[in-house]
Amino acid sequence: MSFDADVLTLYPQMFPGHLGESLAGKALERGDWTLEATQIRDFATDRHRSVDDTPAGGGAGMVLKPDILAKAIDAVSAVDDPRPRLLMSPRGAPLTQDRVRDLACGPGVVIVCGRFEGVDQRVIDARHLQEVSVGDYILSGGEPAALILLDAVIRLLPGVMGNQQSGVTESFEDGLLEHPHYTRPSEWEGRPIPPVLLSGNHREIDAWRRAESEKLTAERRPDLPAGKKKPAKG
Amino acid sequence: MSFDADVLTLYPQMFPGHLGESLAGKALERGDWTLEATQIRDFATDRHRSVDDTPAGGGAGMVLKPDILAKAIDAVSAVDDPRPRLLMSPRGAPLTQDRVRDLACGPGVVIVCGRFEGVDQRVIDARHLQEVSVGDYILSGGEPAALILLDAVIRLLPGVMGNQQSGVTESFEDGLLEHPHYTRPSEWEGRPIPPVLLSGNHREIDAWRRAESEKLTAERRPDLPAGKKKPAKG
Repeated sequence: MSFDADVLTLYPQMFPGHLGESLAGKALERGDWTLEATQIRDFATDRHRSVDDTPAGGGAGMVLKPDILAKAIDAVSAVDDPRPRLLMSPRGAPLTQDRVRDLACGPGVVIVCGRFEGVDQRVIDARHLQEVSVGDYILSGGEPAALILLDAVIRLLPGVMGNQQSGVTESFEDGLLEHPHYTRPSEWEGRPIPPVLLSGNHREIDAWRRAESEKLTAERRPDLPAGKKKPAKG
Repeated sequence: MSFDADVLTLYPQMFPGHLGESLAGKALERGDWTLEATQIRDFATDRHRSVDDTPAGGGAGMVLKPDILAKAIDAVSAVDDPRPRLLMSPRGAPLTQDRVRDLACGPGVVIVCGRFEGVDQRVIDARHLQEVSVGDYILSGGEPAALILLDAVIRLLPGVMGNQQSGVTESFEDGLLEHPHYTRPSEWEGRPIPPVLLSGNHREIDAWRRAESEKLTAERRPDLPAGKKKPAKG
């Protein structure tokens, strides 16, 4: 079963972008997933190919027109399309690894990339667009956000990562940030690898790593549930 | 004054990616900012061009070697380089619009893109890498995160956005999510534009927008300071 992504954008040439490289790119070539970028402007009806208009009530910026965007959505996603329809937007629900995992288990995704001031609220309501935010910062448009969301999802599809990253313990999987990593040489620029890691005592190594993870999470991310706990003594 | 970005990566072909298009791409052509992607592997010393090794203490995945990565960093960033050195990592401090604004006011940035399990902690310490996270999800590597960080920064550089987006009221600027937008037609698929927006009464329009922003922020983002307040009646 393939994972099918449709993206609606004013910049289809931004796709597949970095998703055409590395493991995601190989998986795209193999057909483990598909990506179709559709130009919203192709659904404009006037001779200037307008897609936006001034905001009702005044103000700066331009708003994507509901009629044009709805036609573009309807062209790639039928009423009974089981795929979720996302609108990349800083107003959206913050993307989490749980959401990424849910999307990766599904049949695919339809992603609308906003530009300008925003998108007419009526098309968000009428076409059931779920607003998703990749972070609390402002991007030039929804395209970079769509690319990052797809990157996070694609790497979880069956067969995409192969052995290269399989079994890797990951940040957020247990709600903790990752402990520090070390590799050879055992001393570099006068800095040694912490001796416990070279002890061969796996119980002690696990305990050290857990304590480092808890300390780091408490220091850097008191906003995470695991960051609120007082770390155990390592 | 130009904004100079150096990126250290195992996938230099991912750059400039979407940053080569649209307004960021035009600004890159004009020289408003520069982007150099350097292949970390070019600094490997063995005949296999190895850049990673197994983690000290055991476990899955591979760790970027401190000696090789440090050589790559030193090649693009001298000891007195005033630019911050960032490591894209889910362990990092969450990227915020304040951080984006600070970076955009500076001379540029050096970005290390992690891959594999992680980066040897000693090179993070010795080369003063600041870990930055674009969100609480796992990417295939630091490259998509570097591209999104640069996108957010570049759009704030003087002259990049021109008139297209200038003066736009933005989410996060006042800690509130944006109110809904509407544009013509005044009725679409039986859905009217809220009458207040067509009233011409700018005091009422502002009050309506403010109330909608507060309601949306409280509903969707109780984690934001502005989302904790009880919204005023609109």
